[in-house]
Order: sequence, then structure tokens, then C-alpha cells
Amino acid sequence: MQAAQYIGNKSFKIIEASPVAPADDEVRLNVGYVGICGTDMHIYHGVMDQRVNPPHTIGHEISGTIAELGKNVSGYSVGERVVVRPLDWCGDCPACDAGHTHVCQNLKFMGIDTPGAFQNSWTVKSRTLHKLPANVSLKQGALIEPLSVACHDISRSRLKAGEKAVVIGGGPIGQLVALVAKSVGAEVIISEPNESRRSFSNKFDIPTVNPIEQDLAEYVQDWTNGKGADVVFEVSGVQPAVDSMVQVAAVRGRICMVAIHAQKPQVDLFQFFWKELELLGARVYEHADFDMAIELVAAGKIDLEPFITSISDLENISNAFASMDNNPIGMKALVSCEEKLNG
Amino acid sequence: MQAAQYIGNKSFKIIEASPVAPADDEVRLNVGYVGICGTDMHIYHGVMDQRVNPPHTIGHEISGTIAELGKNVSGYSVGERVVVRPLDWCGDCPACDAGHTHVCQNLKFMGIDTPGAFQNSWTVKSRTLHKLPANVSLKQGALIEPLSVACHDISRSRLKAGEKAVVIGGGPIGQLVALVAKSVGAEVIISEPNESRRSFSNKFDIPTVNPIEQDLAEYVQDWTNGKGADVVFEVSGVQPAVDSMVQVAAVRGRICMVAIHAQKPQVDLFQFFWKELELLGARVYEHADFDMAIELVAAGKIDLEPFITSISDLENISNAFASMDNNPIGMKALVSCEEKLNG
Repeated sequence: MQAAQYIGNKSFKIIEASPVAPADDEVRLNVGYVGICGTDMHIYHGVMDQRVNPPHTIGHEISGTIAELGKNVSGYSVGERVVVRPLDWCGDCPACDAGHTHVCQNLKFMGIDTPGAFQNSWTVKSRTLHKLPANVSLKQGALIEPLSVACHDISRSRLKAGEKAVVIGGGPIGQLVALVAKSVGAEVIISEPNESRRSFSNKFDIPTVNPIEQDLAEYVQDWTNGKGADVVFEVSGVQPAVDSMVQVAAVRGRICMVAIHAQKPQVDLFQFFWKELELLGARVYEHADFDMAIELVAAGKIDLEPFITSISDLENISNAFASMDNNPIGMKALVSCEEKLNG
Repeated sequence: MQAAQYIGNKSFKIIEASPVAPADDEVRLNVGYVGICGTDMHIYHGVMDQRVNPPHTIGHEISGTIAELGKNVSGYSVGERVVVRPLDWCGDCPACDAGHTHVCQNLKFMGIDTPGAFQNSWTVKSRTLHKLPANVSLKQGALIEPLSVACHDISRSRLKAGEKAVVIGGGPIGQLVALVAKSVGAEVIISEPNESRRSFSNKFDIPTVNPIEQDLAEYVQDWTNGKGADVVFEVSGVQPAVDSMVQVAAVRGRICMVAIHAQKPQVDLFQFFWKELELLGARVYEHADFDMAIELVAAGKIDLEPFITSISDLENISNAFASMDNNPIGMKALVSCEEKLNG
């Protein structure tokens, strides 16, 4: 079989490797499709070399088929189609004790801190698996992980039917957050300066605002008849968004912090006091978020196909990353990792 | 009767005035004691002149006795001892519609936006009143308002028995927050650089940390066996506290924003994402917070007497403010506003 290794400096190498036999509680998967995540792009750019320690196989947005079962694994059969919730928690820290294993204090993120899915075969703990219903393709399955991020954000924000939400940032996660928001019966708009991303939102009948041309706070005031947004999702990671999120939130509004802010932005804490705002950090996903994501796709409530910008073969992974790098406003590039049988 | 008027430039004038007859839904009080609040000190320093528009009678931490009832007021009798929840809400904005009248979008704060209590007689809407039980003195009654602030902070933070809380800032509100935290069964420490304030905490058996001399984050790590604080109350309003609040909070910790940050501090939003922190703004109080505050004092669970640093007569209000100004670490100065009958 083949595996792609990130070797540093925006480069991958395809190597011959042996499948890893599953330990007692593990399952070996034949990998189907693997999506390229924003974090994978950060790794590609070399900013996380200290954490991933190249050469290293990355990739964590994955669908696949069960190839082999460890001896203690029950509830799964060879041939079943699954997705992986790529979290490896310790089970022993205060966060795990409190049931928050997804923010385990010793969490290993599979595909970053441990080997990942950009290979023909991937061996993982069975506790990370979720089954794919028959009507969800392996291609859509590779997008269950980012959709689960969005489900987690909605869950953290406690967004409910009839409420009005503003999503700041229309990248893949922002778009998925908006779709999940709609699916729970909320009204949602996306604030996004890029025209192509705004067009993408409009395909899903999600209204958009260009915050460079239009005053977002004024727009939201009008849209909500002076109340402000019940929920704001900050999915952009920039200072102007941090200013806006506080301005557009209603009294007692909830702000969900989805973005990764590498710098410490200035935050108008006075408004947190004055309007009794709530800021809720949201990281990865929990078991129930994967369940919800799969159900939304299986029920036809969210169609992930339009998110797939391109599909490349594993041996062309370098081109797939380079292409995302040259087209940063593309939505989701998939890498097909099914083994090519020569014969 | 006499009333004190703030006339700008750290000055008060005592004027002769007539009691205001109560409108149909109002009650006229004979004022007992009025506390000097941090906000009153800000007004005294002139930084809120545009809002209060001197000459203006301020004061909102009040106890008193009912002197006269408007014709539609029921449930109260002349002679009853009461405290005032000094909020005047519109009842008609989205926040009021949602039941959050204390953060009404058109809220008038009585004693700032409308005439206040530094006078012998004060006329207020009956919906602002809470009765004082027989065993709560009028002196302690004047501290029910700040204690209600603390009760509201505890309520917003969802602090519960067995949890560990850090209060950053040991002024009067920080001390009261710590006492209410103890009263609900939480363990609490106060971080405070001032020695005299730390000694005050220690009287109540509340452990303290001097964050100038000791690394607060390390202290909390040890104290919580590596978990971090379940709840942090930011009651100081300075940048180092904003840095600390994020560091000392546990995974999924709640941070209650009590302080008024006039500047926009830098906030480590990455940690909000990483630890799934929650930031909860808390402003003034709700009806239930006054009920809780009165009950805590009536039940003997919190003794407010040690907070009373001085008691001055109304005609000496200028000295009372000047004295607080010269001794900013004092806890609570009361002004006795009972009418002196000459004859």
C-alpha cells in the first residue's frame, strides 16, 4: 500500500508502507476519501512542524470501509462504511472525568499528533468510528468531520428555531455553520468580504453582507428590528470581526468563538458587561455532533456535494495542496485514497 | 427636608427641598442610610458629568422606611422598612420582552439617570421595593444593593457547591462575591495586591493571593490539582487580570465579567477556543438577586457590618466623599439621611 508523508517545506512524498494490523480495540480501514482541512494547509505551510515532526502522514477528514477488526471490537463488521472522529483522549484527566473527552487536557488529535489518513489503509481505535448510512456516499462522508464541527458550534451556542444568527466568515466552516443553523430553524446571514464565497452562500439561499461595503451593525439592527443577533459565530479570526461580533449581538446575545485567534485581539469587554453577553469557545466535536452531522446528510437536510471543489488521487496529493494554496477561497478538496490494485 | 446635590468638580451642595408626593404607583420613603458606590466616586470625579448633568442628587444604595403610598400601591404599609432595586426599565424593548428588564435597552439607573437617594425623602416606583426582615438593620440594608450585585454574579456564573472559584480583585464587590460564593458551598480564593484588602478577606477565612508576589496561575494549578478554576470572577478591570482569568480557568471554566473595562483589553481568544471557556457578562441584578441577598443577611449567613467603614451625616456628605477619595481601599462609607427634626 501507499502512504503520503508530509516532509516539510510544502512537500509530500509517496512511500510504500505496510498496513498496520489492528490492536485488540482497533479497526483497520481501507481509506476512501480524505478532505484537506485548513489545519492541513497550516501544516503544509510549515508553521506546525514542531508539533507534527515531519516526515509524518497527516489527514483527518476521512471516510472508509472496515477491512479488519481487532479481537475485542464488537458492533462492527468488515465491509461497513464508516467515518472517524479523529480524537484520542486520555480518559484520566479532570476534563475527561467531567465527560468532556473532546477537550481532554492530554488530547491527541489524530492526523496531527498521531499518524493520519492520507494513505490507503488507516488503523484506528474502534471508539472513534461512526457508521455511514447507505444513502451517504464516501465522498460526502469525508465532509462529515467538518460538518460535525459546525454541529458542535450550533450545540455550544444553544441556537434554536426562530432565533437570528450572524456568521462572520464564509469559509467552509462558516458556510456549514450557516447550513446547520438553518436546519435547526434559525434565520441566518453570513458576513463575508469575498464575492465568490458570498455567491456560494446564495446558492443555499443564505443572505450575505459584504462588511467592507456595508455597515454590518446597521444591517443587523435593521434585520432584527433593533434587537441585535441572538447568536453570532466568529469564524474569521481577524480583529474587525471581533469588533463586529460584540456590536451586532443582542442584549444577552451568545457569541460562539469558532475561529483560532493566533494573536490576542482587543475585545470590548465593557459591552460584555453592559449587554450581559456570553462568549462560548467551541473546539472540535463530541460524539453527538457526529451523530447529528450524519443524520442531517442522511435525511437530505444538508447536501455536501456542492462543497467538493476537486478530487485528486493520493499520488497527486502535492498538486491537491498546491492547488488549494493557489485558490484559498475554494471550499473542499478531497484526496481519493482507495488502493489501486495493479494486476 | 434637605437634599444633597452633586454640583460638579468634587463638590456637593445641601439644599432645602420639598418631599415629592408619590404618583399612583409610587411610594415616598424616609431615607435611612445610603452607601457610597464606586460609580458615585466616578461621578464625584467628574467623569460622568455628561450623563448626570449636575446639579443632580445621586445615591442608589439605600435603605428606608415607607412614609407615604400612592393610591394604586398594594402590599406595602407606611412604616415598613424597605430597600430599593434602583432600576427603571421601559417594559417595551426586546430585552424587556424577553424578561431581562434589568438590562433593558432603555434602562434608567435611578440615582444616576434620575434623582437619587442622598436626601431625607425619596419617591420611587413601588415595583422597585423589597421588604427588610425585622432582624436586618437599616445600616445593613444599605448594603443589600451591592450584595445583590454579588448574588447576580454568582447566579450568572452558575457556581455551585463543591466548585472552586477565583475572585480577581478584592474591593467591596469582589469581597461580597467571595462571601456569596462561600454561602453556596463553593471554595473561593481572592487575588488582590493590596495588603489591607487581603487582611479584610482573611477575617472571613477567605484565602488570598498577592498576584504581584506569587504566580496566580501556578497557585491555582496546585490548589485544583491541575484542573484549574471552575469559575473566575474578574472584578478588577485591569489587563493583567484579563490575562490571568484565562490562564487560571479550567477546561470548560466559566469567567464572569463583573468589572467595567473602560479600555478594550487584549484577550487570549485562542484559549477560549482551546479550553472551551465561557465568558459571561454580569450587570446589576434581577428581582431574585435582591431576594437572595436579603435572605443571606436575614439568615445570618453573611454579616455586612464589617463592610461599614464610616457613617456620616447628610450635611457632611462632602467629607464622606473626600474621605473615600483619600482612602480608596476602604470598604463602604454610609451616609445617614434620616431627617433631623429641629424643635
